[in-house]
Amino acid sequence: MVLYVYCLDIFNVYTCLSLVFIVFRLYILSFLYSFFLYQMLKRASTSLFAKHSFVSSSLSQSNRVHRIITSRSLIINNTTIKRKMSTTTDTSAPAAVPAETQQPQHPKHGSSKKKSKLQVSLKTPKGTKDWSDSDMVIREAIFTTLSSLFKRHGGVTIDTPVFELREILAGKYGEDSKLIYNLEDQGGELTSLRYDLTVPFARFVAMNNIQNIKRFHIAKVYRRDQPAMTKGRMREFYQCDFDIAGTYEHMIPDSEILSIVVEGLTALGINDFKIKLNHRKILDGIFQICGVKDEDVRRISSSVDKLDKTPWEVVKKEMTEEKGQSEETANKIGEYVKLNGSLKEIHSILSLDENITNNPLAKDGLDEIATLMEFTKSFGIDRYISFDLSLARGLDYYTGLIYEAVTAASAPPTNAQELKKKVKSEDEDASAYVGVGSIAGGGRYDNLVNMFAEASGKKSTKIPCVGVSFGVERLFSLIKQRTEAAAAIKPTATQVFVMAFGGGKDWTGYLPERMTITKELWNNGIETEYVYKTKANPRKQFDAAEKAGCQLAVILGKEEYVEGKLRVKRLGPEFADDDGEVIDIKDLVPTVQQKLSEIHKDGVNEVARLLRGL
Amino acid sequence: MVLYVYCLDIFNVYTCLSLVFIVFRLYILSFLYSFFLYQMLKRASTSLFAKHSFVSSSLSQSNRVHRIITSRSLIINNTTIKRKMSTTTDTSAPAAVPAETQQPQHPKHGSSKKKSKLQVSLKTPKGTKDWSDSDMVIREAIFTTLSSLFKRHGGVTIDTPVFELREILAGKYGEDSKLIYNLEDQGGELTSLRYDLTVPFARFVAMNNIQNIKRFHIAKVYRRDQPAMTKGRMREFYQCDFDIAGTYEHMIPDSEILSIVVEGLTALGINDFKIKLNHRKILDGIFQICGVKDEDVRRISSSVDKLDKTPWEVVKKEMTEEKGQSEETANKIGEYVKLNGSLKEIHSILSLDENITNNPLAKDGLDEIATLMEFTKSFGIDRYISFDLSLARGLDYYTGLIYEAVTAASAPPTNAQELKKKVKSEDEDASAYVGVGSIAGGGRYDNLVNMFAEASGKKSTKIPCVGVSFGVERLFSLIKQRTEAAAAIKPTATQVFVMAFGGGKDWTGYLPERMTITKELWNNGIETEYVYKTKANPRKQFDAAEKAGCQLAVILGKEEYVEGKLRVKRLGPEFADDDGEVIDIKDLVPTVQQKLSEIHKDGVNEVARLLRGL
Repeated sequence: MVLYVYCLDIFNVYTCLSLVFIVFRLYILSFLYSFFLYQMLKRASTSLFAKHSFVSSSLSQSNRVHRIITSRSLIINNTTIKRKMSTTTDTSAPAAVPAETQQPQHPKHGSSKKKSKLQVSLKTPKGTKDWSDSDMVIREAIFTTLSSLFKRHGGVTIDTPVFELREILAGKYGEDSKLIYNLEDQGGELTSLRYDLTVPFARFVAMNNIQNIKRFHIAKVYRRDQPAMTKGRMREFYQCDFDIAGTYEHMIPDSEILSIVVEGLTALGINDFKIKLNHRKILDGIFQICGVKDEDVRRISSSVDKLDKTPWEVVKKEMTEEKGQSEETANKIGEYVKLNGSLKEIHSILSLDENITNNPLAKDGLDEIATLMEFTKSFGIDRYISFDLSLARGLDYYTGLIYEAVTAASAPPTNAQELKKKVKSEDEDASAYVGVGSIAGGGRYDNLVNMFAEASGKKSTKIPCVGVSFGVERLFSLIKQRTEAAAAIKPTATQVFVMAFGGGKDWTGYLPERMTITKELWNNGIETEYVYKTKANPRKQFDAAEKAGCQLAVILGKEEYVEGKLRVKRLGPEFADDDGEVIDIKDLVPTVQQKLSEIHKDGVNEVARLLRGL
Repeated sequence: MVLYVYCLDIFNVYTCLSLVFIVFRLYILSFLYSFFLYQMLKRASTSLFAKHSFVSSSLSQSNRVHRIITSRSLIINNTTIKRKMSTTTDTSAPAAVPAETQQPQHPKHGSSKKKSKLQVSLKTPKGTKDWSDSDMVIREAIFTTLSSLFKRHGGVTIDTPVFELREILAGKYGEDSKLIYNLEDQGGELTSLRYDLTVPFARFVAMNNIQNIKRFHIAKVYRRDQPAMTKGRMREFYQCDFDIAGTYEHMIPDSEILSIVVEGLTALGINDFKIKLNHRKILDGIFQICGVKDEDVRRISSSVDKLDKTPWEVVKKEMTEEKGQSEETANKIGEYVKLNGSLKEIHSILSLDENITNNPLAKDGLDEIATLMEFTKSFGIDRYISFDLSLARGLDYYTGLIYEAVTAASAPPTNAQELKKKVKSEDEDASAYVGVGSIAGGGRYDNLVNMFAEASGKKSTKIPCVGVSFGVERLFSLIKQRTEAAAAIKPTATQVFVMAFGGGKDWTGYLPERMTITKELWNNGIETEYVYKTKANPRKQFDAAEKAGCQLAVILGKEEYVEGKLRVKRLGPEFADDDGEVIDIKDLVPTVQQKLSEIHKDGVNEVARLLRGL
């Protein structure tokens, strides 16, 4: 009995202990679960809260949030003061605030009447900017130049949405995929902003079963990269792409793309550029020759790609220490990638290298280069091309020729590392220590369309493609440096200013009459303005005409007008003493047209002059 | 002892039971936690998974996911087959697939070789579409028409980023704020896609302390609304905005905006439109007169706004039952909002109404209408305007004149309710039962800029604004209906086709020579193409020229070319028997220029014809 009791007791104690242990374990587990759950919920609620914060602010905004946001705008305003304000490219920062508006963060009005109102930062998101009116004139001129170039080559244009299904973009950009902007999951499909125009183009070609197309596309793309605003490296930026899709003989479309690069940059007044060119087949052949395993090729290629900004020693170290290549392999690669010169020179050197000619991949590439040499000669663009074995380009999808156009401004400053150290945080703009980078770039990608066709369950159809992308912001930053010309850009197109002169007690100001005259000019396609005022004195009207950059005034004189007459007068200091010509109202339109065509007779306007670098 | 044992036993049993109960409770709790956690993780991982799915798919894609996505594309393909395929506006659906590619979802290649590869839906996100080449020609023509109109009125253009800080958009769109697209919080700022161009414009004006500007902006905006693709109601769509900011005398800028609406629509060949116009001050005065409390005014205004698609009885019910207005108030409102007619008619009626003339708000508005009447007469645009007291417009920020341009196609079909019932789910496109809606709209918003200035802690500065927004997709859908003309649109600009004719054993095909000739034409700005083939027979070259829509051929004849001669020939059936003209190579460019200028002499091209509705 005692034994039994004892046993029972032991048993119970054992049970109890084991149960206690289980309970304890479960407590730990629940605690971990709860903690994890708490973290998840915190994330979720942060975004939810942010979504509704402004709306709820007038109701019951907590002081804490108010304080945080207030101090945030304080910091921003400090930055405003510290930063050198200019009207140049970086307008993403708040504009210069006149002294009298440099008020404390609770202006009288705000703090007394609307204490609960949330403070808002008046700025654009990081890496984006507003384009001002005169900058837009230059940008539009770049677009017009490039799109007429593309049309000259038989291009058609298409447009695709700014965001794509996320699965379309996945797996196309290698390590850079982390830079893709995702849209919030608000129910429905998962989408992301496009990262380039090439992948949407390939999706378009595959989706519509297109066999061949020459298309151009000028549109914004998005990358969450470190911005360098004054160097034209931004998170929202334009690409101008021209691509030729279809099965053609080797190098015919490729050489046309190279010609387009030359024609485009020349048309934009850029003459000191060169096109660095390489061939993925040759590069990959070289990696094989040097003993890089197939699975390592793209990673080693990425290392080589850094050679434009990084010394060989650093790149070599990355290959051997981080990417597991032998010293010997790295040295061999080093010998090849230092080669650069004209197509002819490098082609000769490689043709004499038995390692190259015995490697089927490299041999293929080399033969294509031989064909290319003939075509670039026909197009007369040899002298712009530099065969550079260190050019690798980051994107995964290239399969043949690759190229980049660079100018002197493309490279970072020589003391970049030093300058970089001076910049305090990662959040700062990188303009001080980076270059403009390549101003155009592209290559051949023969498998991308088929990748989409196959992945969507369509019949496998290989649509080879080759294309180029011009970087508009980078080109803009170069063109904008031609400052004297840029300063003369007039943002309006206004040609004619309609005025009324008169006085005395019965003077009405002729407002409705000015409206009617202006309207007649508008109806005939003539850019016309007038002062939005019942009565305006002549000085104010001349000032407004000058501000609008008008060269012609149409004047309703108090007495002349009642007799059915108008006065047409040239504007500008050289015509100060010229009273103009009195005409019949019915002759208004032909007279104005005649005078404007005389004014624009030898018409290279200032934008064209700026673009051509005159 | 026994008692003790018994007690111990009881105690133990009790302990055990309670412990078991605790354990059980904890199990339940952990189960609930786990389930909740699983749901959270599932959501999170769906997006994570989607992000990496393509990359990981080749490694270890689970069959289940594979099946889900496969069946999803199956459904999509069903839709493809069921839908009437056309080359009209809705290209968001996968394009018509030729019979031979209508394969099962596991094509041989895909299923055998790459079984684990994730299936991708080749489509654009809901409510968005690709723009094909010939549609782009029409869209570009619309843009050119409107931007030259805006320039004619002294407008300058600016550009703002596609996304704004979320706080900038918050609180500007009333109930429609739920339609804003948010970007994911990927670290950094919270941002959203712009919902219109007006709020970013006001932010720009406030940020840069601009006192006056006439700006236009043609850009995409984003709304997560129910799409009706063939009616031009989309989630991604263009707006063409013109706004005048600055302090001017009453109604001068407002009447110019109305003139712009008339000029813009007329220039696009739309003549059967009318501009519905109202004044927020009059409307709000009427609500006061009818007994609506100040805090209810915007909500009642929203109800009135529905009168263009909803009968009065339904709107009245909403006012009385949902929005707490008395029967009497609703009836009074009903009397006023049914008024519409010319400015003059309605102005006379309201001027005789003592309730109106005694209400300071309504009186103010009525006086402005009197001024407006004078100006619209000067501009000669009276006949397009209909004073419609039922027009309210949804957006919160309007403070004065409001207007909308509508055509016959704007209204929904008369049996809309019936048609709507036939559509199975909310996910379907709404094209069947909605109208095109208003094709342009806008109004005066005098407080928006100041709202930003104050909220950012700047000095309060009132910058009154008035503007209009043209809906490009809706205009496009109307223009596209002029089908015969639309069918003639040629997407390329190519003018000249360079060909080579020859034969025999020693015939090279003159590829490099064709390249050189083509390049000379490109260098002189002439749109030129040639066949990308070493040797191409004449038939193929003529076919390619016809496909590109060329009207002129430059021919390198085998014998002629070696003698320094080229043949220039008109293309088209009427020139079939014409052998063209033999010229010296050095005369190529002037000859081609001369012939092209003859061809385009009386040059109204087909796009212009389409736009003008000829």
